[in-house]
Amino acid sequence: MTATDLELASSSAETTRSGRTMNALVYHGPGKPVWENKPRPTIQDAGDAIVRITTSTICGTDLHILKGDLPSVTAGRILGHEGIGIVEQAGKGVSEFHAGDKVIISCVTACLKCDFCRKGMYSHCRHGGWILGNTIDGTQAEYVRIPQADGSLYNFPPGGDEEALVMLSDILPTGFECGVLNGQVKPGDTVAIVGAGPVGLAVLLTAQFYSPAAIFMIDLDDKRLAEAKQFGATTLINGTDGHAARHVMELTEGAGVDVAIEAVGLPATFAICQAIVAAGGRIANVGVHGKPVELHLEKLWDRNISLTTRLVDTVTTPMLLKVVRSGKLQPKKLVTHRFAMNDILKAYDTFENAAKEGALKVILTSGRPG
Amino acid sequence: MTATDLELASSSAETTRSGRTMNALVYHGPGKPVWENKPRPTIQDAGDAIVRITTSTICGTDLHILKGDLPSVTAGRILGHEGIGIVEQAGKGVSEFHAGDKVIISCVTACLKCDFCRKGMYSHCRHGGWILGNTIDGTQAEYVRIPQADGSLYNFPPGGDEEALVMLSDILPTGFECGVLNGQVKPGDTVAIVGAGPVGLAVLLTAQFYSPAAIFMIDLDDKRLAEAKQFGATTLINGTDGHAARHVMELTEGAGVDVAIEAVGLPATFAICQAIVAAGGRIANVGVHGKPVELHLEKLWDRNISLTTRLVDTVTTPMLLKVVRSGKLQPKKLVTHRFAMNDILKAYDTFENAAKEGALKVILTSGRPG
Amino acid sequence: MTATDLELASSSAETTRSGRTMNALVYHGPGKPVWENKPRPTIQDAGDAIVRITTSTICGTDLHILKGDLPSVTAGRILGHEGIGIVEQAGKGVSEFHAGDKVIISCVTACLKCDFCRKGMYSHCRHGGWILGNTIDGTQAEYVRIPQADGSLYNFPPGGDEEALVMLSDILPTGFECGVLNGQVKPGDTVAIVGAGPVGLAVLLTAQFYSPAAIFMIDLDDKRLAEAKQFGATTLINGTDGHAARHVMELTEGAGVDVAIEAVGLPATFAICQAIVAAGGRIANVGVHGKPVELHLEKLWDRNISLTTRLVDTVTTPMLLKVVRSGKLQPKKLVTHRFAMNDILKAYDTFENAAKEGALKVILTSGRPG
Amino acid sequence: MTATDLELASSSAETTRSGRTMNALVYHGPGKPVWENKPRPTIQDAGDAIVRITTSTICGTDLHILKGDLPSVTAGRILGHEGIGIVEQAGKGVSEFHAGDKVIISCVTACLKCDFCRKGMYSHCRHGGWILGNTIDGTQAEYVRIPQADGSLYNFPPGGDEEALVMLSDILPTGFECGVLNGQVKPGDTVAIVGAGPVGLAVLLTAQFYSPAAIFMIDLDDKRLAEAKQFGATTLINGTDGHAARHVMELTEGAGVDVAIEAVGLPATFAICQAIVAAGGRIANVGVHGKPVELHLEKLWDRNISLTTRLVDTVTTPMLLKVVRSGKLQPKKLVTHRFAMNDILKAYDTFENAAKEGALKVILTSGRPG
Repeated sequence: MTATDLELASSSAETTRSGRTMNALVYHGPGKPVWENKPRPTIQDAGDAIVRITTSTICGTDLHILKGDLPSVTAGRILGHEGIGIVEQAGKGVSEFHAGDKVIISCVTACLKCDFCRKGMYSHCRHGGWILGNTIDGTQAEYVRIPQADGSLYNFPPGGDEEALVMLSDILPTGFECGVLNGQVKPGDTVAIVGAGPVGLAVLLTAQFYSPAAIFMIDLDDKRLAEAKQFGATTLINGTDGHAARHVMELTEGAGVDVAIEAVGLPATFAICQAIVAAGGRIANVGVHGKPVELHLEKLWDRNISLTTRLVDTVTTPMLLKVVRSGKLQPKKLVTHRFAMNDILKAYDTFENAAKEGALKVILTSGRPG
Repeated sequence: MTATDLELASSSAETTRSGRTMNALVYHGPGKPVWENKPRPTIQDAGDAIVRITTSTICGTDLHILKGDLPSVTAGRILGHEGIGIVEQAGKGVSEFHAGDKVIISCVTACLKCDFCRKGMYSHCRHGGWILGNTIDGTQAEYVRIPQADGSLYNFPPGGDEEALVMLSDILPTGFECGVLNGQVKPGDTVAIVGAGPVGLAVLLTAQFYSPAAIFMIDLDDKRLAEAKQFGATTLINGTDGHAARHVMELTEGAGVDVAIEAVGLPATFAICQAIVAAGGRIANVGVHGKPVELHLEKLWDRNISLTTRLVDTVTTPMLLKVVRSGKLQPKKLVTHRFAMNDILKAYDTFENAAKEGALKVILTSGRPG
Repeated sequence: MTATDLELASSSAETTRSGRTMNALVYHGPGKPVWENKPRPTIQDAGDAIVRITTSTICGTDLHILKGDLPSVTAGRILGHEGIGIVEQAGKGVSEFHAGDKVIISCVTACLKCDFCRKGMYSHCRHGGWILGNTIDGTQAEYVRIPQADGSLYNFPPGGDEEALVMLSDILPTGFECGVLNGQVKPGDTVAIVGAGPVGLAVLLTAQFYSPAAIFMIDLDDKRLAEAKQFGATTLINGTDGHAARHVMELTEGAGVDVAIEAVGLPATFAICQAIVAAGGRIANVGVHGKPVELHLEKLWDRNISLTTRLVDTVTTPMLLKVVRSGKLQPKKLVTHRFAMNDILKAYDTFENAAKEGALKVILTSGRPG
Repeated sequence: MTATDLELASSSAETTRSGRTMNALVYHGPGKPVWENKPRPTIQDAGDAIVRITTSTICGTDLHILKGDLPSVTAGRILGHEGIGIVEQAGKGVSEFHAGDKVIISCVTACLKCDFCRKGMYSHCRHGGWILGNTIDGTQAEYVRIPQADGSLYNFPPGGDEEALVMLSDILPTGFECGVLNGQVKPGDTVAIVGAGPVGLAVLLTAQFYSPAAIFMIDLDDKRLAEAKQFGATTLINGTDGHAARHVMELTEGAGVDVAIEAVGLPATFAICQAIVAAGGRIANVGVHGKPVELHLEKLWDRNISLTTRLVDTVTTPMLLKVVRSGKLQPKKLVTHRFAMNDILKAYDTFENAAKEGALKVILTSGRPG
């Protein structure tokens, strides 16, 4: 923040209701989430907006944070990087949004000005990236401060469904950009998705934008696989026997798949992708990995493959909005459970026991309508 | 070969000079190359051409074969997959070439008809690929049989230089396709090439087609690095101190390079590429790898990188020919030593001791002019 | 044809049943199609195949020929460039097909070897292109000679439907390549198709591979528009009032469409495309034009548009086959009428009076099953 | 401008030196440019910057304005949309630039936030585009107000040359984006540039980034053609005889060129492009057109060509800066004449009589160094 910004922030601070409080989910260290009273956020920078949350949700990454896996998240942090809400106040540098606007909050904060943003790599924005619920306070709260609001909010379309559109905060662009676009899914392709969790299902939903001929869904849980069938998977493979790759190779008569999409984040699932990718095919990594993997270059060096990694840039949010509005994408299918925001700890319980509970995405709604 | 083909072959066999012999370099097992007398090849299939070799050269892969590293190459095989020559006889199914035509022989044999060829992946041709001097007899001989001749030969341009154009058999398309095209080198890019051997230098020469702003050349040998300077490298990095990656990161002020091209084939050199690729960058593998490498997905999963592998397809040969003819690419620079074909064992000696001899590519010429 | 080819042809001619005859639709000048007896075709070149037609169809271009619009078609020519059939005999240079194979005949003949074929521009093949039913005899006959058979035939998939797959001979790749691929249709796009005839409907069917948000269909005939609705158009515009462009601009709130696809071939319909293309949009021409059009560069020079033309290359036939087999594309919808091949003149009558008859594609079947 | 903006502007206005004046070139209607005293510009919006001009230049478009060809430019307007300068004051919403920064001014103003900017189409920015010296006051003055400064200025690199880098304001990105990128120039291509004026030469300079095999330059003026030779053209064609197209077709043995770039803006020069584009080639329009052209779709419909139009977006400015800094692009070559800013009317005289004066770009410098 520059001197000019500070000056502006201090002047605008006078006009914010700085003494007021709100409820929020606060991380107090591994295993210690607390729903507690916190000061309401205020404008700190000319580009900030304060958004009153009407709908939020929980991401698999939030569970990792609660386990203490992400050192960037420190005690005292309000969690959450997904949400729908109403702009309560906009900083003087915000030109695209005004108080009263209903908005979709992107999980990625984008200044739009830096070299990375100019290249469409908002994930690596020099003034943003994934910071919400990570290095700054997030959306599992009654109010949230959104820096770089012009680049980080999207207009909620008239008549839109909050439960459907909160999926545009993170999971749909993640599946689409990291999995489908990077995997270059084309009409007629054979695609394999390893991992039928919410992100894998987001890949599955958005892969169908490009009319692949076959989509194999690989997971260890028959319930999830059955869900995937409903979402459009053409072939289900339960890899419990340890032979998922062999099954894929048999099904493709030894050719392998055009696109293998990793949506888990483990060496074993990444190994499946390597084993099933066809010559000339693509491996698109979506999963968050905690350790190195073995890359079989001794087999792959002459196979003309590409392998991609990506943190979601959310550059496709406008495109996804259009497809949702056209009715061709129905992200509401991902919602299995609903809670009041006040019951967020119960929602976390349900989400943590996703397999048992049959949970995909859990919706959190504030008492007050948007 | 189909029944029809066999029939045709047997009928055409009568017209070939089947009793005649030639000299050729024959692999008799690890460490045993012999320049010896062999029967001259004859047309076996309607698509074949017999080419009299006027110029050939030796590839790093030939050295691997002589060490016994490639089980696909069996004793009795004539080596070599690069060459210029004159078509001596063309099978009845060959439409694009005729006896007397001077041709460039591609290291990759392409039927042009199969699904892979249709996609431009000649390297994976179902009836060809890299077979010359591998699973069928090669070009380090007085004559060679070229199957699928229409897809595997290119017209030698009038006034062309054999020493220059024999580099189009393998090394230039390899550097260009696997390194430069897969690495998507763009104007203004910062490119690092790991390995300043002949293939790395072919990458260096062809990367300049796209006007990168900087090309870092990384090697352990100062002589090779000095050569790279002559070929257009803007920065030389001798990695003997084990800190090549650190030097690159310092030179790029921590950003890393847009494109990292691996032209060695070892875990250590591949590791350098991973360590220096910028967010949003590309790693293009050119090297032939004999074992798995460790891929640091725990660091790279959110870096928006792509990693590619490729066996040369030689689909860019017509483009490369145009650039050579325009004078913008001068592959002759790669030639350091010249031998008569009869002295091929001396040529191998020189090439095996490349560092000591200062050898890049060694040229072999038949006594009889093309 | 080379000397070698001629020699081969003459030798193989002995083995063909050269004295036999067949029925075929012969063009005897403008307005004079005759279903008459003709000699059966024989192998003339090593790359030829003779195919016995089981299913064929009529193209709008055939009507143009009958009107005398195409000087390249001379009296005595057998018409037709679409068909399914059984390979009766394959020349000695044909490697991918054998007698007895059931095949889809492509309207474009491709040698696969020339520079254009190497670039995927089969339409401009130096030894082929669109010649069937144009400069050589075509498919509206009991038998047809297919030159360059390896590049011009595709395997008919087991269990396939002839009526559906004969649409892959021409109309589907035409709509897809010239309209959809050249128009770069993307998820969320707004697409306008001008002309709801069979080709416009083929564009409509294949545009949906990419999940556009809206597809406007523009025509003068309400029956055709109603058909388009069934095929997936989201908005119908009857341009009889001369204000089609104004309607599109109103519907898009002045923005225009991302992609405007011309599927008629007249200056007036091309003018609509110019008037409705959004800044940054694409105009893809599919229609066959007989005269120049006025291009409004004074309005378009700063609009960042692209305009493409294309004769179908049929390079996407394998992709289309995969999508048809997956069930995502059902080309049989295009079939409205069926005739025995012997009744081809009735079929032409019906097709010429398409508006009155409600005809899209008319199917012609030989008595003898495939 | 929003209410918030107005409020900010009025508050910040107090801090600007609003009473001070400067000299500027003012358009007083067709044929009436006056170098006169005007109030210095002040910050009007949080995103504005005031830049003191150190170097400027004159564009062909400025001549059009002076002729009265552009109705958007009204009397009283300060002309000019190119310049280098020093930031004198930055609005409170400007984050990337500060007082004292030396900057390159882009001819296109980009908010970076609207849908067009997000797609990289800054030329169609909903809050900017080409407005400088058009609908707002421009750079041929001692000071200029740059709206949306963060998107419209670029850091002047340390040690840069003002004369070279002022070419990045407009002419180089115009030639590169509209001509070279849209024309998809590739290594080995044959390129024709119609028009050897400054913009055509900018195309010529930047086309060489991609190593085409041949660049034909077509013009009516031998002096300009001789200049083009110095800039890298491989073949010069003086079209005075009316047969430029025929010469190109002969030189290409009837094939035509891969890329034809129109850099004039007249029906006759556009006609040349249509006549010489090869099957599968691209026509890239750079010229500003005042009337419609005849498009020969009756010849081109089946030629697989693309035709593009574009107003420069200046999205490649960072890339161009890198290439200039690497020494591979030397835009200073375009400078033929130099004047003090006070002598701007003389500079206009020289530029208007470019043919007689041998003028390409004329440089204007303020007395006070940058």
